[in-house]
Amino acid sequence: MLKEWVKEPRPTDEELGERLEKARTALAARQMMIKEKKLPVLVIMDGWGAAGKGSVLGKVIRNLDPRFFKCETLTAPTDEEKRKPFLYRYFVRIPKEGAIAFFDGSWMGEVTSMYLHDKISEKKYKSHLTSIKRFERQLNDNGYLVVKFFFHIDEKTQRKRLKELESDTYTKWRVTDKDRWQNKHYDKCMNVYDEYIEATNQFVAPWYFIDSSNKKWSELQMTEILIASIDTAIANASTEQKAPLLQNTFPMKEVPKLSEVDLSKTISEEDYKKELDKLQDKLSELHNELYHKKIPVIIAYEGWDAAGKGGNIKRVAGALDPRGYEVHPIASPEPAEKARHYLWRFWNRLPKDGHIAIFDRTWYGRVMVERIEGFCTENDWQRAYNEINEFEKELDDWNAVIIKFWVHIDKDTQLARFTDRQNTPEKQWKITDEDWRNREKWDQYEKAIDEMLAKTSTKFAPWHILESNDKKYARIKALKVIIKAIEDKLEKVKD
Amino acid sequence: MLKEWVKEPRPTDEELGERLEKARTALAARQMMIKEKKLPVLVIMDGWGAAGKGSVLGKVIRNLDPRFFKCETLTAPTDEEKRKPFLYRYFVRIPKEGAIAFFDGSWMGEVTSMYLHDKISEKKYKSHLTSIKRFERQLNDNGYLVVKFFFHIDEKTQRKRLKELESDTYTKWRVTDKDRWQNKHYDKCMNVYDEYIEATNQFVAPWYFIDSSNKKWSELQMTEILIASIDTAIANASTEQKAPLLQNTFPMKEVPKLSEVDLSKTISEEDYKKELDKLQDKLSELHNELYHKKIPVIIAYEGWDAAGKGGNIKRVAGALDPRGYEVHPIASPEPAEKARHYLWRFWNRLPKDGHIAIFDRTWYGRVMVERIEGFCTENDWQRAYNEINEFEKELDDWNAVIIKFWVHIDKDTQLARFTDRQNTPEKQWKITDEDWRNREKWDQYEKAIDEMLAKTSTKFAPWHILESNDKKYARIKALKVIIKAIEDKLEKVKD
Repeated sequence: MLKEWVKEPRPTDEELGERLEKARTALAARQMMIKEKKLPVLVIMDGWGAAGKGSVLGKVIRNLDPRFFKCETLTAPTDEEKRKPFLYRYFVRIPKEGAIAFFDGSWMGEVTSMYLHDKISEKKYKSHLTSIKRFERQLNDNGYLVVKFFFHIDEKTQRKRLKELESDTYTKWRVTDKDRWQNKHYDKCMNVYDEYIEATNQFVAPWYFIDSSNKKWSELQMTEILIASIDTAIANASTEQKAPLLQNTFPMKEVPKLSEVDLSKTISEEDYKKELDKLQDKLSELHNELYHKKIPVIIAYEGWDAAGKGGNIKRVAGALDPRGYEVHPIASPEPAEKARHYLWRFWNRLPKDGHIAIFDRTWYGRVMVERIEGFCTENDWQRAYNEINEFEKELDDWNAVIIKFWVHIDKDTQLARFTDRQNTPEKQWKITDEDWRNREKWDQYEKAIDEMLAKTSTKFAPWHILESNDKKYARIKALKVIIKAIEDKLEKVKD
Repeated sequence: MLKEWVKEPRPTDEELGERLEKARTALAARQMMIKEKKLPVLVIMDGWGAAGKGSVLGKVIRNLDPRFFKCETLTAPTDEEKRKPFLYRYFVRIPKEGAIAFFDGSWMGEVTSMYLHDKISEKKYKSHLTSIKRFERQLNDNGYLVVKFFFHIDEKTQRKRLKELESDTYTKWRVTDKDRWQNKHYDKCMNVYDEYIEATNQFVAPWYFIDSSNKKWSELQMTEILIASIDTAIANASTEQKAPLLQNTFPMKEVPKLSEVDLSKTISEEDYKKELDKLQDKLSELHNELYHKKIPVIIAYEGWDAAGKGGNIKRVAGALDPRGYEVHPIASPEPAEKARHYLWRFWNRLPKDGHIAIFDRTWYGRVMVERIEGFCTENDWQRAYNEINEFEKELDDWNAVIIKFWVHIDKDTQLARFTDRQNTPEKQWKITDEDWRNREKWDQYEKAIDEMLAKTSTKFAPWHILESNDKKYARIKALKVIIKAIEDKLEKVKD
């Protein structure tokens, strides 16, 4: 694509000046529209070293209100970032609605550079490309405008510019070894960039090439493309477009319907104590091993109100080294969270590798409470099954152990526990009017949960039902499931 | 203190067991009280290597609900953290109300270790001690319970334990060079720790020593002290205690009263354009130099509604490399922010060194809107002058350039601008009912602002009045003030 690109001829200086003045004013006006329409805009800037991305960005933003945009420089990941999933550092930086984020450098730079310098295998590279395409598509589907620019100069121009920069003590530091390498291997790089662009050029986030032979001309191209893209996005935003519901492409693992679950399972007090001790010791040992092998673990708890999530989590956490895990209680999102992709707040809570994150309620709120209470559109929650599978696939690619629990009880047990909470002063804080209201919607929830279990029980992140009419039985089972999942992962890593 | 400490004799095993069982249950109950009373609790654990902090922490939390506490391991700062003020990584980790944070390792470990290994001067060390005392006092004054533990073992016990750990392949990795060094220089370390503890033992955050000769005994001591501390804090919380209003100890710089400001200053259109170009070019150059010398810059904007803050910020930002600065518009705090020390959200927004952060409204909300609208108590905002000076002193210690602007207009000019906004469709979003309501309180605000300017215009973070009846005059002045402040800092750094 890039190789065959036919540049638009550069306008005369006079024409350029006129168009630029108009475009600058128009872009400033667009910024107010973005704010009003609550459109989040992500602008990606990649390209050749010395193509002038930075200085063009400086010009473009000069007419914008600095309170409503952010610039992020994304070069090599830090050591901290390397301990998170590949997309982490990009996802946590997405803009909120009404704001623009400019990324100087992006996932393109990161993966192509790793690939060019033989730091990742062909297979890993392809897998990253898949992740990137999913990420960009998810942003679009969740209302983001994503505009990707590639700043292009030819080999000769690059060489000339690098030489110029190097010859001046004031600018010398800006030329990196990577830039020199790039120029020396221009054709090789060109091939990789071209293929990358071809592979990631999507309707939801198309590529735009910028002829970077001249600064003002670069600025004009970028500004005009931004304006056109924003206009399209704003026009689309008011039509309540639905995004296509994609077919599942992940391997699934069977999970029963809730009505088929045998809730009569129990454990004796004596066996419980014995097993609990034994399993907690085992888990404690495994935690140590995970820490050494830098394997992250994500444990997600969902379940009926009063099903015993809290006590279950406590027995798991009790076995862990407190310096190596964190429990995240998930309530309704805060304003800054609501103003972004609904998975943003979960990306933000991912642990470092070697650590364990336990979520007390999770991203599955999207297909349960948000679906039932109408907090999102039908298209939103229907799309979410696949979006969530993709999210968990990222965790899997990061080599995480992913364990998802549905803590299950029947309706009568819930009533008994609610009544007990109501009548016991120390437990009253645990029961609210909302719990009673949710209980009235039991059947609606059951339908939603069955659909959720069926559509998101993937082989890499399967659901496990914890039969919790007997809470002790459920705790022992949880520990067993977690131990098994960790052992399986450790076995796999050994190979 | 530590040297002369007389240990409580260890109880018999039987007595220990009984007390421990009681204490564990009692601590679990306290956790619910903390939650109900919205008390934030910070528990600091320092001590000798191999004193068993980690495993005692593991025991202590075993009976707690993992959803309402967090453990943080704070060893050496990361490269990212080193680019922030010294207290940054601690401040951003303080718990929210109703939760407990356990810090395994703290600022004590960090500063004593730097000092022992000659990585900081005596002077810097003392300055850190001052910062630490202020930090702990501020936490207390803002409703935090801070409990500090030092886990103590004697030189022989440490040597024995290190040997044991080293002899087992499974635990060998836990012994660090630092531990070995510490044991070899036990007496030297003891002297430094002892002095540190003496210097930082405050009513608002007292030290507690834990005789760590035995695990269960350690756990009992820590648990019982925690319970007693929580009980005291909860009892105090319901008495609406006021914290003492401390005298100012910072060098001040004079600043006029608002009524004395000459608002008739103007600049011609021609001079404005000329100056603007020249000053922006100059600032752009300086930004580059700051980046290289890793000097951070904090620019704080406060001012009347419609005084022209937005346009002023735009002219400053327009001169900067977009990759090296960020503008933070400050609105009312989000729930997670409101649940913590009011300065937390500003600590969270501090730039890396070499970068510039521009705040559009600031931490001074505490002594303006929060004071006038009654969003905090009288004691809260009265205390805030000193708390804010201390905050800015931390920024100064970090070698930041700190510039604070009051963008000033008179009442008539505000009315004219409000009316213009109301009557111009594209500007209507800029004016709200709240603006009109605030205007009615002009005199109250003026009094509060005069007090604020007088009490927080320190030599290291002085206020600058921008006469903004003529917005262009104010923009030029802002640029000049910023350039001067940066040049002064660069001059100082050179020495």
